[in-house]
Amino acid sequence: TLPKNISYSNRGMTLESDLNETNLYYLEQGIAVIHKKPTPVQIVQVDYKSRSTAVIKEAYFKQPSTTDYNGVYRGRYIDFEAKETQNITSFPLQNFHAHQIEHMKRIVEQNGICFVILRFAKSEDIFLLESQYLFKFWDRMVLGGRKSIKKVEIEEVGHKISLGIQPRIDYINIINHLYHFGETNS
Amino acid sequence: TLPKNISYSNRGMTLESDLNETNLYYLEQGIAVIHKKPTPVQIVQVDYKSRSTAVIKEAYFKQPSTTDYNGVYRGRYIDFEAKETQNITSFPLQNFHAHQIEHMKRIVEQNGICFVILRFAKSEDIFLLESQYLFKFWDRMVLGGRKSIKKVEIEEVGHKISLGIQPRIDYINIINHLYHFGETNS
Ligand SMILES: [Mg+2]
Ligand SMILES: [Mg+2]
Repeated sequence: TLPKNISYSNRGMTLESDLNETNLYYLEQGIAVIHKKPTPVQIVQVDYKSRSTAVIKEAYFKQPSTTDYNGVYRGRYIDFEAKETQNITSFPLQNFHAHQIEHMKRIVEQNGICFVILRFAKSEDIFLLESQYLFKFWDRMVLGGRKSIKKVEIEEVGHKISLGIQPRIDYINIINHLYHFGETNS
Repeated sequence: TLPKNISYSNRGMTLESDLNETNLYYLEQGIAVIHKKPTPVQIVQVDYKSRSTAVIKEAYFKQPSTTDYNGVYRGRYIDFEAKETQNITSFPLQNFHAHQIEHMKRIVEQNGICFVILRFAKSEDIFLLESQYLFKFWDRMVLGGRKSIKKVEIEEVGHKISLGIQPRIDYINIINHLYHFGETNS
């Protein structure tokens, strides 16, 4: 049986594949070691046909309890989530889960570098938003405020990333500026 | 069909569950944020029975290209692999894959904190071995030397971890000593 909602499941693939390419570039150039975590799966039934081949016959997608990407840059821990929206003027906060926000708050407490990469699919605008701003917008929602971040708000406190060729989405360049790694790296 | 080799697949569960408990303790106490990565799975066929339930009907285990555990401790990136053996006097290097060693070398180049936790199941001895020593033993094998690390070698350069109650395997305590985090943490 083929997935019915193929267009839905392909949504988000542009950002993900651009980030995978970016991370591969960082890896090969020795700039940073950042990987996407495997999709968490609850395995229920496995068929051991031969000694070498195990076929998973029944499994379910689990909700991720952390973010999708993490790794190391110059000894510092890097952690981020990437999301995109078809909306034009705002970014829906329902794209995030409460336990992901909880995870990001813990990372910040441990002095890790934590942010989200947000993409507006229609305009192809990409922003890096530091997690402390995401927390503010999230907490505003929890207190009864709007369930999304206005694009103008993201433009105000976020950092726009222009799409490049190599690397595609150069978020490390933003991190260099924010954490003053820049001087010895350029 | 139930797995034929249930004893084989349960091998390693003691160390893994002790480390999961340890990491949960660190998380709840605000000491460190370290997670085990999900098992990487290649998904081939998915059944969308309803809008909310997707059942994975065919998938395969993929060989991990990184280590199993990573996270953040006081801003620093932590990365490790955990392995156990039934052997008494040596630890087989075949427990590691070449691309895992490659990954660990990249982590060290990025100034990350990288090590392995080795357990001798029979004696229940647990050691933290810093990755630079693992690389030496690995390279010795690649150059035609022995395919395992002698337990006496591990005792010489590794750090024994006594099993505790809370946390079970207090590897952060070793990291404190090795990286001089100790003074303000005790
Ligand atoms: Mg995600
Ligand atoms: Mg493993």
